[in-house]
Amino acid sequence: MIGASTPVSEQLVLSAWTQKTMPSALQHMLSATAHPDIISFALGLPAPELFPAEAFGAISAEVLRQDVAALQYGPPSESLKASIVALMALRGVECRAEQIFLTNGAQQGMNMLARLLLDPGGSVLIEDCIYTGFQQVLEPFQPTILTVPADVASGMDVDAVAAHLESGKRPAFIYAITDGHNPLGVSMSAEKRAQLVALARDYRVPIIEDDAYGFLSYAQQSIPPLRALSEDWVFYVGSFSKILAPALRVGWVIVPEWLIDKLSIVKEASDIGTATFSQRLVAAYVNTQALPAHLARLRHEYAVRRDAMLDALEHCFPATTRWYKPDNGMFIWIELPETVNSLELLRIAITDQKVAFIPGTVFSVGERQSASNGLRLNFSNCNVARIQTGIERLAATIKALPQ
Amino acid sequence: MIGASTPVSEQLVLSAWTQKTMPSALQHMLSATAHPDIISFALGLPAPELFPAEAFGAISAEVLRQDVAALQYGPPSESLKASIVALMALRGVECRAEQIFLTNGAQQGMNMLARLLLDPGGSVLIEDCIYTGFQQVLEPFQPTILTVPADVASGMDVDAVAAHLESGKRPAFIYAITDGHNPLGVSMSAEKRAQLVALARDYRVPIIEDDAYGFLSYAQQSIPPLRALSEDWVFYVGSFSKILAPALRVGWVIVPEWLIDKLSIVKEASDIGTATFSQRLVAAYVNTQALPAHLARLRHEYAVRRDAMLDALEHCFPATTRWYKPDNGMFIWIELPETVNSLELLRIAITDQKVAFIPGTVFSVGERQSASNGLRLNFSNCNVARIQTGIERLAATIKALPQ
Repeated sequence: MIGASTPVSEQLVLSAWTQKTMPSALQHMLSATAHPDIISFALGLPAPELFPAEAFGAISAEVLRQDVAALQYGPPSESLKASIVALMALRGVECRAEQIFLTNGAQQGMNMLARLLLDPGGSVLIEDCIYTGFQQVLEPFQPTILTVPADVASGMDVDAVAAHLESGKRPAFIYAITDGHNPLGVSMSAEKRAQLVALARDYRVPIIEDDAYGFLSYAQQSIPPLRALSEDWVFYVGSFSKILAPALRVGWVIVPEWLIDKLSIVKEASDIGTATFSQRLVAAYVNTQALPAHLARLRHEYAVRRDAMLDALEHCFPATTRWYKPDNGMFIWIELPETVNSLELLRIAITDQKVAFIPGTVFSVGERQSASNGLRLNFSNCNVARIQTGIERLAATIKALPQ
Repeated sequence: MIGASTPVSEQLVLSAWTQKTMPSALQHMLSATAHPDIISFALGLPAPELFPAEAFGAISAEVLRQDVAALQYGPPSESLKASIVALMALRGVECRAEQIFLTNGAQQGMNMLARLLLDPGGSVLIEDCIYTGFQQVLEPFQPTILTVPADVASGMDVDAVAAHLESGKRPAFIYAITDGHNPLGVSMSAEKRAQLVALARDYRVPIIEDDAYGFLSYAQQSIPPLRALSEDWVFYVGSFSKILAPALRVGWVIVPEWLIDKLSIVKEASDIGTATFSQRLVAAYVNTQALPAHLARLRHEYAVRRDAMLDALEHCFPATTRWYKPDNGMFIWIELPETVNSLELLRIAITDQKVAFIPGTVFSVGERQSASNGLRLNFSNCNVARIQTGIERLAATIKALPQ
């Protein structure tokens, strides 16, 4: 019998999976990093000084002047969908507006696709080192997780995917971050892309392709995403968060047309619809034809920052560390000697040197231990001077570790 | 064996509950009602001509001029939470900013609370005639649904709630639309409110209180929502959609403080966070002190429209129909003779008379049949002239029915 003196928090029955959730030690540490004294390479933040804020100010006023229905509930913007079709063509993907579903950023896209495909207790196939937000998407389903190695030099181990499927496993989907892998920074080779999509088609297992970073490409030539290879078996997730502004929360998924009605039902139950006003703003911005130049500017500036970080690593980091040059995205992956625990390193880095990053261990799925000596550094958010200072501080933290 | 000629739609395995979802006949009919020739009383839309569009245009530009971080990822706005505390005080609710969680409108608030409290296959207690959006929230959980009658004159049958609980049932939560019930328009009596909250407390079953329409009050005096009676057992859901602008997608829930961290985890997995830009816009608008006058204007204008609709019903509708005067919200509930099927009536109304509404049957849960001769009319979206014409058309539709 529960007595009247029992705290309410012990009387209330929560759903099974939320009973277990707790903010991590990491989250508590990172909440301290918002302080301006701390140089943070932790989060996947764009550079705020590159936001087209002035353009958005003018566009906001103009959109509202033209049509008060910009503040009303409304159907998904056809103009925005047409713009996304054109944007995807730049990546070598052919799609139609009827295959596009608008979301609150990529995170909601992944969440909705998981709901569409996965039953509680079902199984999924993912790499053993991936974006934590996708791990959060999976948590309520308490799925059986099949893993394959994530190779920092060439991306997903597709042979391991084949082995799972050949052994008879049929996951609800395969999750792939094709370009600018989060956290490894790697982009998959063209051969692996073709092999992975062929497996999806042959075994009838759909791929959720997370392309949040794909438009941020720094190589001379980039390879089209998986979606270019199959419109039936690759469910693509894109976003304006990294290439325009995260605060608008506008992203999209591309799926076979017959699934759009089902996504509409999931979306309506989630939050009615993606904010009409945000949709109109993004559509109006893209219609000014400013996006290609903006993207070119981002690519140029982020490449400069990436190279500055690589140079600083070369100058300051001990010879026992390794890192990888990414061709896409916002992250550099570092590997420290295996004796280093990067979560403990973060605690010291924040306290002693006022510099922050994400320790590799939080990206680890299942048995993989190698990520515990890894760390993810973001190079898009800080300017070059702060990058240099931050890497010096981080190097000092590492050198001060007991050997 | 699936052959190569099998359509992909038959090869792909979807999650169990989405396999069954399909857009309804109703949704197909309603998609036709966006045409300007059709007078629609169907949806819960605010009047667009009353949106403070000019103010928002100026505020948008100013917010972006002051701080480009308005376009960045960011923590929930403290300024907005403080404004919500003040707003709730106007409704007789004492709460603290630490108890407020910002959402993409009320729908996401309800969805998140359901995830927090309900396990797949669990049980819930709801009225037998409620907002369809909440039914959509429940669908993925495939729960056992306990129902109690929704009384059009006095609201939820709280004695029936007591009977369920006394018989040993322990639903994950009770869902209540206290003021401006959707679809019935009714507001619960003070006695019923006290009785319901006492039951929640005694049996330790939380209430999800959907107050999307509560601020639209047309009576001289309004009764505080359930949340005023218990901060432990009433989880309140509010929204700026009906009182400011739906297109910003900003709402809130009020829960005991210890649940905020858990909601943060659910939210992050859903869509990272509520759009920073929308939060800043609403906070800046509220800080101009314009909201009280705006709310007063909405209440005045919507009361005029409600009364115009009631007058038109009195003049045009056959004596065999009944309706109820709502003190809150956006809807009038109509009951036709029991021989009328309101879904069939809608088909004729759209085709022959170019007028639309929502047939009662879509709100029905479980065994309730009486709603099949009901219909929900929205009075906030159309001006008085269109309300009069629309009700005349609807009366003509009813009178043309075979007797």
